[in-house]
Amino acid sequence: MLKGRHLIDIMDFSTEELDEILGLANEIISDEEKFSQVCRGKLLATLFYEPSTRTRLSFESAMMRLGGKVIGFSDAGSSSVSKGESIVDTIRVISCYADIAAMRHPKEGAPKIASMYSSIPVINAGDGGHQHPTQTLADLLTIKSMKGTMSNLKIGCCGDLKFGRTVHSLIKAMSRYENNNFTLISPRELKIPDYVKKELDNKNIEYIETSSLEAAIGSLDVLYMTRVQKERFFNEEDYVRLRDSYILDKEKMTGAKDNMIVLHPLPRVNEISHEIDQDPRACYFKQVKYGMYVRMALIMELLGIK
Amino acid sequence: MLKGRHLIDIMDFSTEELDEILGLANEIISDEEKFSQVCRGKLLATLFYEPSTRTRLSFESAMMRLGGKVIGFSDAGSSSVSKGESIVDTIRVISCYADIAAMRHPKEGAPKIASMYSSIPVINAGDGGHQHPTQTLADLLTIKSMKGTMSNLKIGCCGDLKFGRTVHSLIKAMSRYENNNFTLISPRELKIPDYVKKELDNKNIEYIETSSLEAAIGSLDVLYMTRVQKERFFNEEDYVRLRDSYILDKEKMTGAKDNMIVLHPLPRVNEISHEIDQDPRACYFKQVKYGMYVRMALIMELLGIK
Amino acid sequence: MLKGRHLIDIMDFSTEELDEILGLANEIISDEEKFSQVCRGKLLATLFYEPSTRTRLSFESAMMRLGGKVIGFSDAGSSSVSKGESIVDTIRVISCYADIAAMRHPKEGAPKIASMYSSIPVINAGDGGHQHPTQTLADLLTIKSMKGTMSNLKIGCCGDLKFGRTVHSLIKAMSRYENNNFTLISPRELKIPDYVKKELDNKNIEYIETSSLEAAIGSLDVLYMTRVQKERFFNEEDYVRLRDSYILDKEKMTGAKDNMIVLHPLPRVNEISHEIDQDPRACYFKQVKYGMYVRMALIMELLGIK
Repeated sequence: MLKGRHLIDIMDFSTEELDEILGLANEIISDEEKFSQVCRGKLLATLFYEPSTRTRLSFESAMMRLGGKVIGFSDAGSSSVSKGESIVDTIRVISCYADIAAMRHPKEGAPKIASMYSSIPVINAGDGGHQHPTQTLADLLTIKSMKGTMSNLKIGCCGDLKFGRTVHSLIKAMSRYENNNFTLISPRELKIPDYVKKELDNKNIEYIETSSLEAAIGSLDVLYMTRVQKERFFNEEDYVRLRDSYILDKEKMTGAKDNMIVLHPLPRVNEISHEIDQDPRACYFKQVKYGMYVRMALIMELLGIK
Repeated sequence: MLKGRHLIDIMDFSTEELDEILGLANEIISDEEKFSQVCRGKLLATLFYEPSTRTRLSFESAMMRLGGKVIGFSDAGSSSVSKGESIVDTIRVISCYADIAAMRHPKEGAPKIASMYSSIPVINAGDGGHQHPTQTLADLLTIKSMKGTMSNLKIGCCGDLKFGRTVHSLIKAMSRYENNNFTLISPRELKIPDYVKKELDNKNIEYIETSSLEAAIGSLDVLYMTRVQKERFFNEEDYVRLRDSYILDKEKMTGAKDNMIVLHPLPRVNEISHEIDQDPRACYFKQVKYGMYVRMALIMELLGIK
Repeated sequence: MLKGRHLIDIMDFSTEELDEILGLANEIISDEEKFSQVCRGKLLATLFYEPSTRTRLSFESAMMRLGGKVIGFSDAGSSSVSKGESIVDTIRVISCYADIAAMRHPKEGAPKIASMYSSIPVINAGDGGHQHPTQTLADLLTIKSMKGTMSNLKIGCCGDLKFGRTVHSLIKAMSRYENNNFTLISPRELKIPDYVKKELDNKNIEYIETSSLEAAIGSLDVLYMTRVQKERFFNEEDYVRLRDSYILDKEKMTGAKDNMIVLHPLPRVNEISHEIDQDPRACYFKQVKYGMYVRMALIMELLGIK
């Protein structure tokens, strides 16, 4: 039962609960009209202490497509809430106005604190480099919808695996389903942290580490791309040398399976070449759409609306 | 008849008119569902020339909970209206789009000027240090709801009584009801202005001035707390010396009546200790909720919707 | 058939298509209630990469008055979309959330590029000094409504005819209707560009150039005023010398026909004296209202809603 719950970390929910959300999302996709008024009279508050237009608009369109309405702010800079008022008091005030809240905050843990004092469900819409659980929900729904299963998949994660929070959450979440394994593709400087590998070891989940996207791509069912940011490197030479090997282009795609899917949390800079946008395996814009649908399902579940 | 009227100063409305608004607010509270579509097709414009997130969201949730919709801006800085266009022209333009407007402005008198050229009702949502009449409506509804009466009350006002516009308006408004008296608790530097005292004298209303919250608290039915801002003092020593005596904490609350209520216009900084948030007499978050309900009633009245 | 089309340049639409939009706008005006739910469940995205509050609120109120809802941003500065994401990717993302988009951008051509990659209709809400076709729609609807015809009119354009994009579009659009002619009133420094005159010559449309508003006003059916900005002049003296001759005031209005109408795209600074706001010939605030109605019609047409 998810009614009244918060979503701060994707691991807050059991596999059954995740499946319930993903299942509802699929119901919505198959008959959107049926759900177009279920949140009539309900208010979502989008509390964005830092701008994240894509995520904010995903939440807002999700709520509106359910017949609900939205209040909020898109940037604490042009808001007065951050000045001289604690997050604790803010969420208590917002609890008086809205039925559910989505909070984005530059500080890790802020949405968790808010949830402790809130009388309405709080959704973490990203807290610093920490968690972004609705992005993971979007990733899961995309995989489930495009591959037809969450199990027995060879999942490649490519790019900045050190700082990329979406990759860590995806690995955690997909580790709960049967017989998935991981190919971790990154430059040496941006390898996956040890604690993630330890978790995989503890669960006896197979993984390979490699620095070559080209070599790895042929065996993958899912390829999750992330940005390789220049500022992560110690020197410019290394960056320039490595950059191109992590750009997914037409040539590299020729080595991939016909039914592999490419995901990316967006925004991309240049790590996926525009020339493959039309490739049917390029699913990153579908992922945006699935992100909206899964947020619709999440809002309904936390509000206890069926 | 309030239809088509503006609300610039709380004294614009007669006692009967105030009672009509408070009465409607109570009807809404007792059956919110009944009012959830009364403003369908109506638009509120929130014209916030300076950010005030709490007040803006209160108005917006009020309108949306009545089934209406909202357009507007939350900060003239990121808006183009303040540049090269007079308030007179802006309100004429807004009159074309919306059915009612709430205006917040750093300059005293700006909402008054707007109302003179507007063809839709204008609500003053705060103009500089001048007026903030919907805060006073929130205060009145909270007192009426929690105490069951607006008369025969001993009302304490504590903190910065010199600059605190909400206190001045509350005193004016509560002076119109029978047999209320006031205990004005402040440091010498922040005493209530003479013109307010003169008004009380003219109406033969009792009041006491004191600097001790501790001594006064025992006799009060209502305690209205406000912020004591450091920058109001001539020197740091005075501020440090006085500050703690105006912090409401558990110890001071032991001296208060069991049915006293504590109000605060928010945001608080530290003048009310978090340890009393759970005390049933602490009503400042209820006050936020009442603020939303009374704005719902006000919008309905000014639009002439029954 | 306008369903699914974009509006980037007013010349994208044929005269028949313009007439269809203006006709629908008139239907809406004559029975607004009938159209109040036609866009229920539809979302407009307002993508304002630079603030333009008047235009944004016109689009938003238009969509809401049709029963639709709005997502978006009002300033790319406080948004994250402009950083590290191309307009191409942004519009693809927005296409997942919304049913139609209105884009304002400081760069000429940006809405055109967006429309090429969008799966939803894109409306140009102003791109730099280039095009602002919905302003022209507003102008046309005002002329049609106030004069009862779009033909046989003597149209005066006054002020900055060199840089004023709304004037160029209006001339192009009105040139398509029968037997209109133009009086182009400006200081020498701000004369209409040659390419506009060439177009008029090619179509054998009459026009006069003059620097005297006073001399020209008597013969006009429509007077379209624009701002004369100080920074357009080479020296201050010229500006001061010329400024007053382009201010429309009571005295100059005495020379005009009784049924002439005055239009202005707003905001005005001082080029129309406030003393004539009450003159029945002053139609610039009516024009704002017509602008909202014509945007309602445009949204319906592009969404294919009848």
